[in-house]
Amino acid sequence: MAPKRIFNFNAGPAALPQTVLEEIQQEFLDFKGSGMSITEISHRSKWFDDVINDAVARTKRLFHLDDRYKVLFLQGGASMQFCMIPMNFLAEGRTADYVNTGTWSTKAIKEAQILGKPIKVAASSEDRNFAYIPKDIAFTPGATYVHITSNNTIKGTQWARFPDTGGVPLIADMSSDIFSRPFDAGRFGLFYAGAQKNMGPAGVCLVAVRDDMLALTPATLPTMLKYTTHADKNSMFNTPPCFAIYTVQLVLKWLEETVGGLDKMAQRNQQKADLLYNLMDESDFYNGTADKDSRSMMNVTFRLPDEALEKKFVAEATEAGFGGLKGHRSVGGCRASIYNATSVEAVQALVDFMKTFQSRNG
Amino acid sequence: MAPKRIFNFNAGPAALPQTVLEEIQQEFLDFKGSGMSITEISHRSKWFDDVINDAVARTKRLFHLDDRYKVLFLQGGASMQFCMIPMNFLAEGRTADYVNTGTWSTKAIKEAQILGKPIKVAASSEDRNFAYIPKDIAFTPGATYVHITSNNTIKGTQWARFPDTGGVPLIADMSSDIFSRPFDAGRFGLFYAGAQKNMGPAGVCLVAVRDDMLALTPATLPTMLKYTTHADKNSMFNTPPCFAIYTVQLVLKWLEETVGGLDKMAQRNQQKADLLYNLMDESDFYNGTADKDSRSMMNVTFRLPDEALEKKFVAEATEAGFGGLKGHRSVGGCRASIYNATSVEAVQALVDFMKTFQSRNG
Repeated sequence: MAPKRIFNFNAGPAALPQTVLEEIQQEFLDFKGSGMSITEISHRSKWFDDVINDAVARTKRLFHLDDRYKVLFLQGGASMQFCMIPMNFLAEGRTADYVNTGTWSTKAIKEAQILGKPIKVAASSEDRNFAYIPKDIAFTPGATYVHITSNNTIKGTQWARFPDTGGVPLIADMSSDIFSRPFDAGRFGLFYAGAQKNMGPAGVCLVAVRDDMLALTPATLPTMLKYTTHADKNSMFNTPPCFAIYTVQLVLKWLEETVGGLDKMAQRNQQKADLLYNLMDESDFYNGTADKDSRSMMNVTFRLPDEALEKKFVAEATEAGFGGLKGHRSVGGCRASIYNATSVEAVQALVDFMKTFQSRNG
Repeated sequence: MAPKRIFNFNAGPAALPQTVLEEIQQEFLDFKGSGMSITEISHRSKWFDDVINDAVARTKRLFHLDDRYKVLFLQGGASMQFCMIPMNFLAEGRTADYVNTGTWSTKAIKEAQILGKPIKVAASSEDRNFAYIPKDIAFTPGATYVHITSNNTIKGTQWARFPDTGGVPLIADMSSDIFSRPFDAGRFGLFYAGAQKNMGPAGVCLVAVRDDMLALTPATLPTMLKYTTHADKNSMFNTPPCFAIYTVQLVLKWLEETVGGLDKMAQRNQQKADLLYNLMDESDFYNGTADKDSRSMMNVTFRLPDEALEKKFVAEATEAGFGGLKGHRSVGGCRASIYNATSVEAVQALVDFMKTFQSRNG
């Protein structure tokens, strides 16, 4: 019997490609003829070497990363990166700029401050509840890095183009839009992403870091908190989260071989976002919360005329097989997260449902 | 077609109960009728609440933990605990004792030293290559904790009884023997274990911590590195490693409901260890490396008459369907890891193979 599957619009953990899930299921008790589950094989085995090396190679290929970059798979999520970044890169006398575009940026800033680092908030969109991405930012010349959040999962905004930093390396939390579109990775000293939105299950964080940044790591940090520890050991200083890395590897294989790469992925994501934003632009029933030029292609946030209708909308949508449409508990409203694995068909079905709901309640 | 499965004697990641693997496989595309994979559901959902709460409840029941203890599921493995423990518990003026019984103890000691904490190595078995567990140790009165490694995966030794610390709280790395036997948890301020040996896949670390220890955590640490952060949020300050926690929950369910609890598990583990150690005691072909009174019930380390025979043994065993018998790369020789999920039948089959190998090569 085929499993019942819903249309999954979760903000994270989120939908994964069904063919990937089926492949995991199929080989779950005997991974590549090893006679063991992927959860039972040694991380020092040839089997797992092939998995992690393929995940690294695909990441480097998809982003056109040159040999200066190391791709790491770490634990602790993006939240652990919030402290590791200033610990590793802001030795005595160094400073960094942060742009505050929402909840996650705010948390990243807070961790640098807890460590007593003299960072500067170069721009913020807090004045209008983070509904936009700041423009024309005056960055600090000579800063060690500029930290941004490329996509704001909760606020539904996204950097359409990354800011001109005057040559200062960018660092970005890309947890909710990594692998959703091509970008010029060469401007980044480091970018990172928890896997659970656009590339895998929770429990692994991808970090791509350039050698000039690695050179800044102080020798005196705890071993697990130094990027160099993990860069020197291909993410296997200690036992890595093997199952999560394996799933990421399969998702990247799907992205390259089934979808056809980041250009194709971006086209598909644009098509999905357009379906939802066009509906909102034509409607005075569904109202997007983000400024038009700052809209996210990944997290479409919107309000209905009142909270009772929003509650009814989410309840009826759930009943009809559309999951995850409630907005984040900190902002309310509704949100459709349309990451890579969400199909055009799923979004079209949601749009159809939204039209019907409006006709009955508008 | 039934999957081909080997006898898995891996040191970690290691064998998991086959019924648990089958349950995961069976519901992998539709978790509890949610229409989503366990890897796709929100960690804020009722579905996942049930998983993590059940894992916590089973842990507390199995160890008879009272309300002073919190059970946490963290990322970064035991290696991250090596730095978190001194960071959280050794504020200015505090000290701790460490017992060095091998590779992992040595790493734990190193991390406390990197942080500049004034810890003392109260005892060590390094003089005889860690082949034994030290006795009659003079601990420091008034120390904040005594850190031990309950089972030494690489050296094949294990504390048969935990040491008398004169009332100082014990802290133990139990990565390779947690849930293998009952013990008096009330003497511990904290115990921790990476999941990938005795309770699940790599990517999650169980930490049980008592409230008097939590009270020592300084406010100024990075948020992710404070035990209180995770204790206050039931391990969901940020997205936890959901799949790994789910697997642990199923393994603990198997331990309680199929095996019948820790007493039964310990009996079975003793039976398995006896099969191997009895063979060694009767043989001058297979020689155990650990002192008899310090032998591990989990990792049975042994040597053959010469390295060529060891190589031949591992190769022929692999061919015959016995995996993971090569000793750790740092010590050589052979090792059979016989964690909870390894059946008596698997160990009996290995003993039979070893006897046959000896008769052909002895």
